[in-house]
Amino acid sequence: MPDLATRVYNHNFRIDPIVRSLLDTDFYKLLMAQMIFRRHRDVRASFAIQNRSVRVRVGDEIDLGALREQLDHARTLRLSRGESTWLRGNTFYGKRQILSSEFMAWFEEFRLPDYELETRDGQVALTFHGPWVETTLWEVPALAILNELRSRAVLRDLGKFELQVLYARAMTRVWEKIERLKRLPDLSIADFGTRRRHGFLWQDWCVQAMSEGLGPKSFLGTSNCLIAQRREVEAVGTNAHELPMVYAALAGDDDAALAAAPYAVLADWQQDYEGNLLVILPDTYGTTGFLRHAPDWLTAWTGIRIDSKDPIEGGEEALAFWRARGCDPREKLAIFSDGLDIADIERIHAHFHGRMRIGYGWGTRLTNDFRGLVPDGRLDPISVVCKVVSAERRPTVKLSDNPSKAQGPAEEVARYKRVFGVGEQAALPVSV
Amino acid sequence: MPDLATRVYNHNFRIDPIVRSLLDTDFYKLLMAQMIFRRHRDVRASFAIQNRSVRVRVGDEIDLGALREQLDHARTLRLSRGESTWLRGNTFYGKRQILSSEFMAWFEEFRLPDYELETRDGQVALTFHGPWVETTLWEVPALAILNELRSRAVLRDLGKFELQVLYARAMTRVWEKIERLKRLPDLSIADFGTRRRHGFLWQDWCVQAMSEGLGPKSFLGTSNCLIAQRREVEAVGTNAHELPMVYAALAGDDDAALAAAPYAVLADWQQDYEGNLLVILPDTYGTTGFLRHAPDWLTAWTGIRIDSKDPIEGGEEALAFWRARGCDPREKLAIFSDGLDIADIERIHAHFHGRMRIGYGWGTRLTNDFRGLVPDGRLDPISVVCKVVSAERRPTVKLSDNPSKAQGPAEEVARYKRVFGVGEQAALPVSV
Repeated sequence: MPDLATRVYNHNFRIDPIVRSLLDTDFYKLLMAQMIFRRHRDVRASFAIQNRSVRVRVGDEIDLGALREQLDHARTLRLSRGESTWLRGNTFYGKRQILSSEFMAWFEEFRLPDYELETRDGQVALTFHGPWVETTLWEVPALAILNELRSRAVLRDLGKFELQVLYARAMTRVWEKIERLKRLPDLSIADFGTRRRHGFLWQDWCVQAMSEGLGPKSFLGTSNCLIAQRREVEAVGTNAHELPMVYAALAGDDDAALAAAPYAVLADWQQDYEGNLLVILPDTYGTTGFLRHAPDWLTAWTGIRIDSKDPIEGGEEALAFWRARGCDPREKLAIFSDGLDIADIERIHAHFHGRMRIGYGWGTRLTNDFRGLVPDGRLDPISVVCKVVSAERRPTVKLSDNPSKAQGPAEEVARYKRVFGVGEQAALPVSV
Repeated sequence: MPDLATRVYNHNFRIDPIVRSLLDTDFYKLLMAQMIFRRHRDVRASFAIQNRSVRVRVGDEIDLGALREQLDHARTLRLSRGESTWLRGNTFYGKRQILSSEFMAWFEEFRLPDYELETRDGQVALTFHGPWVETTLWEVPALAILNELRSRAVLRDLGKFELQVLYARAMTRVWEKIERLKRLPDLSIADFGTRRRHGFLWQDWCVQAMSEGLGPKSFLGTSNCLIAQRREVEAVGTNAHELPMVYAALAGDDDAALAAAPYAVLADWQQDYEGNLLVILPDTYGTTGFLRHAPDWLTAWTGIRIDSKDPIEGGEEALAFWRARGCDPREKLAIFSDGLDIADIERIHAHFHGRMRIGYGWGTRLTNDFRGLVPDGRLDPISVVCKVVSAERRPTVKLSDNPSKAQGPAEEVARYKRVFGVGEQAALPVSV
């Protein structure tokens, strides 16, 4: 009794779309988009794909025509009625209607804007120009498409049983990590792995495995809205570097306005959000300087995300900050999210457990750990990002705590370093 | 678009049957049944389940009502038209119509006979009385049912993802074994794992994995007729201990007839079969004595199966036999089939490759290696057998090369040892 209709329907697809819903994005993109929508609706900003793993020639690995088809398909997507209902009606971070009716009305009409695509030196040069509130929403689907196309290019050559065993091994690996996580007391962890996932179905599996393996007390949810909706888990995430980067670019040549930009972002943010959404991301122009000059109202914020410094060092710095400002760190939250694997989580937990609240945003090493499972590391994840590169025709700059993650034209980087008082930094390897 | 019909149909099953076809048995049972059908149609023989892993209380692990339902379901089975067509039309061991029209006509009407079931000291006491040609066909389905019920009793308590990961681990394990097998030159291996399999679908997966992983040159096929039919691989197997055991019992008190019985079996066998089906199973009453007294016509046989002695010792004994009888061992075939795992196969291959033709019958460690994958070894396979225990009201006896596998009343064992000149034997542990 084959389901003939399903079979015919499936075979009618011209392509196998990687991104099939505008909800297949990270929740924090929506939070940021709403903030941009409210305050910077006319600001234009460009995003561009950047592969930090330059040894991997992504442009040679994947077919440009297939990439174009996938991007074009993503551009056809509109929020469905059920998706919109869910966004409007669901509780996020314990609150209803976190996304306003005005923003939702705009989002319901939204389509992803156009893109520019070429290859350069074996790399994919993919850029998005337009209003910031639109281009920002390309980041996650563009990366997810690129990464899944890389996976598919490898999987195409495998036999049915090789494929089964490949996934069997990857499942075993994820489950063994989950079993190690279970041993950590008071664990709070979420999936942050949409952008660099192996594939959508695989991320979906990982979320379900985390959910069954850890239970709702330890597994806080996923950054992926579509999976959060389908699997009925929390959608999580706060904000990203693009906010201070654009605010800084908009400061123009005014050094004082530039120095104030990272705080201006948070001043705006706290007008829109509260509670566990008040998490500082301090490293865009150096954590140390950011915390040194932080206004006192920031001590009321719930937590700090540690995203580019060595996590022990970054965590200690957060602890020192809260103590210096008279806060009890045990009431504060540190979120670790920088290229974590299970051993990092265990190390961080052993070091900080009991001293402050801890959360983990677990990304690529959760949703794309196929290292060593095919020859030549062809399924190893790469450190590919999609970053805002300019706002209102000015280049954006990121310094980060790790110079390997820095970005921007040299003269602007030098100016930012001067303004933010950033001296020598220790470079850490960036694998994902 | 759910397939409603399939869903409703599946939910209409009163039970989930373990054995769904009379073809879900080992091919050599049919070869033996045909020989019995031709020569000993009226001989009555009883089979009984015997769990050599006495520490495992199978009667406590599984539900007797469920066992009864499964056995009753197996008794409802009849050879289907397509199955019969396949048995009649297919080539086995390179030959058509290896099963005669007379035997097939009988088999088409066949149903499994009744059984007796109780528990005794925590063990399942399951016996089959009736004509030998009928009771012999219970061995494989009875064991497969018992073993799969054990598995199901454990699997019932696992969550969806625990189950997925369990199978992921088991698949990875099988595939790693297959990858090691690929490195062995001139490998010939077949699946002999029906009776002690984890479950039907799992055996089916293992056969397909072997088939894809090793290819038709190295993977000779499966003992399971149903899987051979469905997956279009060869059905393989020759004969088993029950033949000499029944022939010996039928010899009555006549010591000379008893001593001749193992050879009488083979004299009959070679009237029915030829080529690679002429494989001696010499260990029922001790390999050494069997080969010492073997008539010269047995040197024309293709091979020897080594099933209870240490495989290196048994292989050397076969080599010495062929050399002593003036045969070139490189034209002879040794089949190893005793509780093999990958390391045993590698060891045997390193020792004998190039000195004689080698084949492996790989059973329980292929189709039921879930050792250590759930706590307390509850999915570890056990050494359960279904043996002929009497023929025409006389007890049957097996000595084997390994006294741990011996069977029969003490006084009869003593008499057989005397008649067959069996002295001290080295006991080897029997795990499966």
